[in-house]
Amino acid sequence: MKFVEEKILKEGHVIGEDILKVDSFVNHRIDTKFVSDISKAFAEEFKDMGINKVVTIETSGIVYAAFTAVELGYLPLVFAKKSKSKTVDESNIYKTEIKSFTRNTVSEVTIDKRFLSPEDRILLVDDFLAEGNAALGLIDLCEQAGAKVLGFATVIDKAFQGGRKILQDKGIKLVSGASIKKFENGKVVF
Amino acid sequence: MKFVEEKILKEGHVIGEDILKVDSFVNHRIDTKFVSDISKAFAEEFKDMGINKVVTIETSGIVYAAFTAVELGYLPLVFAKKSKSKTVDESNIYKTEIKSFTRNTVSEVTIDKRFLSPEDRILLVDDFLAEGNAALGLIDLCEQAGAKVLGFATVIDKAFQGGRKILQDKGIKLVSGASIKKFENGKVVF
Repeated sequence: MKFVEEKILKEGHVIGEDILKVDSFVNHRIDTKFVSDISKAFAEEFKDMGINKVVTIETSGIVYAAFTAVELGYLPLVFAKKSKSKTVDESNIYKTEIKSFTRNTVSEVTIDKRFLSPEDRILLVDDFLAEGNAALGLIDLCEQAGAKVLGFATVIDKAFQGGRKILQDKGIKLVSGASIKKFENGKVVF
Repeated sequence: MKFVEEKILKEGHVIGEDILKVDSFVNHRIDTKFVSDISKAFAEEFKDMGINKVVTIETSGIVYAAFTAVELGYLPLVFAKKSKSKTVDESNIYKTEIKSFTRNTVSEVTIDKRFLSPEDRILLVDDFLAEGNAALGLIDLCEQAGAKVLGFATVIDKAFQGGRKILQDKGIKLVSGASIKKFENGKVVF
């Protein structure tokens, strides 16, 4: 999407070999007009697929997922949780592990069993797609429930890190605001 | 707000002495129509106060904050972060500590200095107000930047835990979707 590429070129900063810092509009300070615009574009791409639930993972993806869910007709949104609060009953959760590229950690990620079902036709939404680890974790949680993951929408897809190919090989429709081929001399190449 | 009280009575569960579980619509599965409705009501309450930024803390408050920011005219949203990613420069952040009532932990919470300024007239938004620790932490971060906190909007205000009084004593306008007086025999009393 042209407006996403332009926004990244204007406000994003490449750090080192493989990090794109977009904290001024994507994942710390959030440009709510940008969120609204990209979510409408996501919804347009998935509106005819019979999606009935949107799933994401805390934290940064939640805003994009929520606005996309509204645009798809006020669908329910479920976000996978990275840590356990004391109000969670251990026996009633789907669990998986996700490696975070940016944080260099492995997190246990959970969704309450009440919130996924075999009838679900799911759109996953996140802010970044990189190596695909978060995506694979969310797919695992959905599949444990017998739910079907039909699509993945992401603001920024770092195609060179492999996540894009993993999703396409699984037959999941991938829509990204901007797909990055590589970083070259500190610049983004789409 | 009547519709919030009704939703809590219908879908909320009181656990033990002081926990209200609302994960079916507030903070795990999210009812996006409910978010949209309550955010419109929040914006209506604060629309004449010259608010120019919305601030919240990850995770559950972000959706309410984002929709409220849109309703107030696509204001920028900043969310305080609980953990440090490797893309953060330590010398450029405001820091404070927040005790989490539900998790029984103390977290260091940060906002990048670029995203708060002395010109900011801030509305804080969160899903819960209990003892007021998250609110006080966010106020501290804003005040470190010389920004003015004018209001606090929360989905659920557990008035008996003291946060409500702390904010009112500071002269901050508080709007809650539902204000809970107490839990009695496993029931919510507004």
